[in-house]
Amino acid sequence: MVTTGETLVTQQETSNFDLASYLKDKQQLVEAALDRSLAITRPETIYEAMRYSLLAGGKRLRPILCLTTCELLGGTLEMALPTACALEMIHTMSLIHDDLPAMDNDDYRRGKLTNHKKYGEDIAILAGDGLLAYAFEYAATQTRNVDPHNLINVLGRLGRTVGPAGLVGGQVLDLESEGKPDITVDTLKFIHTHKTGALLETSVVSGAILAGGSTEDIQRLSQYAQNIGLAFQIIDDILDITSTQEELGKTAGKDLRDQKATYPSLWGLEESKKQAQNLVSGAIAQLTPYGNKAEPLRAIANFIVTRNN
Amino acid sequence: MVTTGETLVTQQETSNFDLASYLKDKQQLVEAALDRSLAITRPETIYEAMRYSLLAGGKRLRPILCLTTCELLGGTLEMALPTACALEMIHTMSLIHDDLPAMDNDDYRRGKLTNHKKYGEDIAILAGDGLLAYAFEYAATQTRNVDPHNLINVLGRLGRTVGPAGLVGGQVLDLESEGKPDITVDTLKFIHTHKTGALLETSVVSGAILAGGSTEDIQRLSQYAQNIGLAFQIIDDILDITSTQEELGKTAGKDLRDQKATYPSLWGLEESKKQAQNLVSGAIAQLTPYGNKAEPLRAIANFIVTRNN
Repeated sequence: MVTTGETLVTQQETSNFDLASYLKDKQQLVEAALDRSLAITRPETIYEAMRYSLLAGGKRLRPILCLTTCELLGGTLEMALPTACALEMIHTMSLIHDDLPAMDNDDYRRGKLTNHKKYGEDIAILAGDGLLAYAFEYAATQTRNVDPHNLINVLGRLGRTVGPAGLVGGQVLDLESEGKPDITVDTLKFIHTHKTGALLETSVVSGAILAGGSTEDIQRLSQYAQNIGLAFQIIDDILDITSTQEELGKTAGKDLRDQKATYPSLWGLEESKKQAQNLVSGAIAQLTPYGNKAEPLRAIANFIVTRNN
Repeated sequence: MVTTGETLVTQQETSNFDLASYLKDKQQLVEAALDRSLAITRPETIYEAMRYSLLAGGKRLRPILCLTTCELLGGTLEMALPTACALEMIHTMSLIHDDLPAMDNDDYRRGKLTNHKKYGEDIAILAGDGLLAYAFEYAATQTRNVDPHNLINVLGRLGRTVGPAGLVGGQVLDLESEGKPDITVDTLKFIHTHKTGALLETSVVSGAILAGGSTEDIQRLSQYAQNIGLAFQIIDDILDITSTQEELGKTAGKDLRDQKATYPSLWGLEESKKQAQNLVSGAIAQLTPYGNKAEPLRAIANFIVTRNN
């Protein structure tokens, strides 16, 4: 997963921890669990449509963050796996609905036809609804050996993360900001903390809660997650520009073409890189009390600023 | 609520219980709770769109069934009210998405513009998503004095009720059955038990679970709910025909015009009435152990077959 090409920001720490191999192992675990989570039954169309997008690949970053945090605080993979799957179902649902003609109107995602291009718009809306509802059913009915108060806490946070105080709220402000390159940093941060940050934070925090983490653990890991979520978005915006600069002759980056406000457009490229690096440093500082056990979360934070795709 | 016009089926029992006044009281309680459940904050558009459909009136039958069943088994209104609101949020979400252009493409509901006609298709999709997610957040975070295992049970059932094993599955088979008047009774029952029956059943059963009802209570009340759910649908189909016959000069009923398979089209009118009455009698038989305390549920069952709109 860690690429060898030019990095955007100098890697802060070197470590013998093999992140690529760690992510690969966890990814395989998640893929197998997702595959088992949803058997096809009547009416077959909807299960096929849900599985089509749920099993379309991807980094599985959200489930992995949940599993990793649960293990960090002494929990087992088994305790976190149903919630990890639920997080990916929710993420998939948000992609299916974002791709709809009434939203971003995308025909392809990860090289495959989007859900509505493959199954029709009606089924795609229902596949999203089905994945969202099934995420709650799955986490509520499949979780074992977790204090029930902690599970209720996690289910409530999952709901908040998708609703108007999370994904949905972020998407609405994003839609309202289209074609307005002069929006404020405050609005831009609101969009990202809601649209992408909230689910990343809940991925980390839910792992901590399922493991029975203390209030201090949850606060530390929440701050870690908020920082890497925002850094992730800033780097996304930077890559949209720099990958264009590297590949001369191609049309300008999508954000620039769409006159979309981004961190580089508001802060400039250098300041954006600096902010991203500061956020990652702050994230890593939160992990100090956990020592070597936090190596996976540390490596994931560094990976975010060093990735180049 | 109980109309005085011609009834479809002879009322099985007479009682001094004043259903109209009972429903009115509970309805006011639910309206106030729904109004309090969702305050408007940034981004205002999505909260307004969610409130527009959530507070657009309606019988509030699902929340009332949940409250009534919880009280029947010795629980308090307070214990069931957050779940009751969640049930109405879920019901509202299903109406918003069903009305979308890609689905039934309806411009009006209850005399008001549908959500997408008022706010646009993108916001309507997100308002439905938001209500679905918020239903889980609300029930998980606002429920008090309920055994946490019982609350998890309810949250899992809510998820199942909306997902491919519930509303979404029923809607898919309904879409696939369009323009096929020769579908079997089995398929018709599948559509209705999933599309409308499942949420009615969960409304009743969740009230029983929140109150700490026994396995036998839950089985009895589940059967009660399945029976009235199916009877409700049969009567809907009958009314689509008989209200046409009463109002001569109007075009034929919508189902007939759409060549839609219905219970009367498969069974005939008389047999359909008989089946609905049998289902209601079966529902009421399940209430025997509860004596007079079950009078509200008994009256609601009778109301279903005696209503004429």
